Amino acid sequence: MSESIPLPDFPAGHVWLCGAGPGDAGLLTLHAVNALKQADVIVHDALIGAGILALGNPVAERVYVGKRGGQSATQAQISQTLIELAQAGKRVLRLKGGDPFMFGRGGEEAHALATANIPYRIIPGVTAGIGGLAMAGIPVTHRDVNQAVIFATGHDPATDWAAIAHAAPVIVIYMGLKRIGDIAQILIKAGRGADEPVAIVTDASLPTQQVLHTILGRISDDLATHPMSPPAVICIGGTVDILENTNG
Amino acid sequence: MSESIPLPDFPAGHVWLCGAGPGDAGLLTLHAVNALKQADVIVHDALIGAGILALGNPVAERVYVGKRGGQSATQAQISQTLIELAQAGKRVLRLKGGDPFMFGRGGEEAHALATANIPYRIIPGVTAGIGGLAMAGIPVTHRDVNQAVIFATGHDPATDWAAIAHAAPVIVIYMGLKRIGDIAQILIKAGRGADEPVAIVTDASLPTQQVLHTILGRISDDLATHPMSPPAVICIGGTVDILENTNG
Repeated sequence: MSESIPLPDFPAGHVWLCGAGPGDAGLLTLHAVNALKQADVIVHDALIGAGILALGNPVAERVYVGKRGGQSATQAQISQTLIELAQAGKRVLRLKGGDPFMFGRGGEEAHALATANIPYRIIPGVTAGIGGLAMAGIPVTHRDVNQAVIFATGHDPATDWAAIAHAAPVIVIYMGLKRIGDIAQILIKAGRGADEPVAIVTDASLPTQQVLHTILGRISDDLATHPMSPPAVICIGGTVDILENTNG
Repeated sequence: MSESIPLPDFPAGHVWLCGAGPGDAGLLTLHAVNALKQADVIVHDALIGAGILALGNPVAERVYVGKRGGQSATQAQISQTLIELAQAGKRVLRLKGGDPFMFGRGGEEAHALATANIPYRIIPGVTAGIGGLAMAGIPVTHRDVNQAVIFATGHDPATDWAAIAHAAPVIVIYMGLKRIGDIAQILIKAGRGADEPVAIVTDASLPTQQVLHTILGRISDDLATHPMSPPAVICIGGTVDILENTNG
């Protein structure tokens, strides 16, 4: 299907840092599929599903470096793995959920590779905070609602949520399911309306996708009634329900 | 290459609102290519290059609705065109640069379609503000620099740049080339450092891509010396030069 586009050869000893999108294999880019077909080793995390891995070169080694649970590899170990595989002459595909440069720590891996003199390429992907929400019918911008949107992670205790509250009409939070109840209270104290619409989307773009529509002041209660599991992306603001009650 | 993934049939009378990514055809998703192959009509704007359009169903009609220059279609006219083509029983692919829901006005078109009872589907794409910057070696987040990033458009006079200055360490601006000198002055007055690194990327991901590295206080001077043409995406903040002087 993509034979008509010239796509690059994957040189031995190189590392390609590639985003796989939010989960649906159809949201892979042609560059990502091209990388999967040529890789000798696929180093991937927990967010890469079987449907995507199945598209890889059948003889490629799969290396799981997921960071969920206690036994997972550290970031330094992952970078070291990439370096050693490249030094051994492999075509190394580092496959990440979403986009490698949007809360994906791709910059750290790129920096480690550059320092070790390993040639690398970045292949961007569809990020869950835009494309995953789209699959739930939620635009992150809409003409009459916002000229700006802010993206933040929910798991960093240093994040200044009061500043974020004032930053933009629409807030998108990655990795925030565990702390969203507390974050919502900070946002409300900082001036956001308790009745602002919120959507929590888990497994965005996958057949297991779930969407919880609620409001800022009721997130904790609604999550207690309808428990959800990560990965989640959360959208707060007026774009959340702009397409609700349509046939889209 | 993608034959192994089940991709949806494009039903007659439906509209698919699809992001084409920043420009490189290799950054199309498999869903986008699937849509191009089946469409009866491709309604596209100025940012869709010949390389991407060439992937479309050869007998599909191409309808240009670019909004550059004086003679362009209004948003209401574009929505009306989509509705009429769908009502005529066509498979209508509305192809937009970047992502349809990230400053792409996809929400407005989706709303118009829903109101007219036309079934539609959203196909997200790689947005220039993440993927286009990545192709210039710029991550929008980096662990030691920022836990938040804000995206805004440069062409809206109502945008509160002083608020955005305080919002996040990294600011990404779409459609801002013409006003970036003025915007930089507002950001500096609001407290951003005049020596903060800035990158301006035009034609991101295409062979004609250009990157200008400068600092907030010197944008106007540097653009006077090195004039650039839209489309541009601009990144301001500490992630801009984090991978500079590497071999990536």
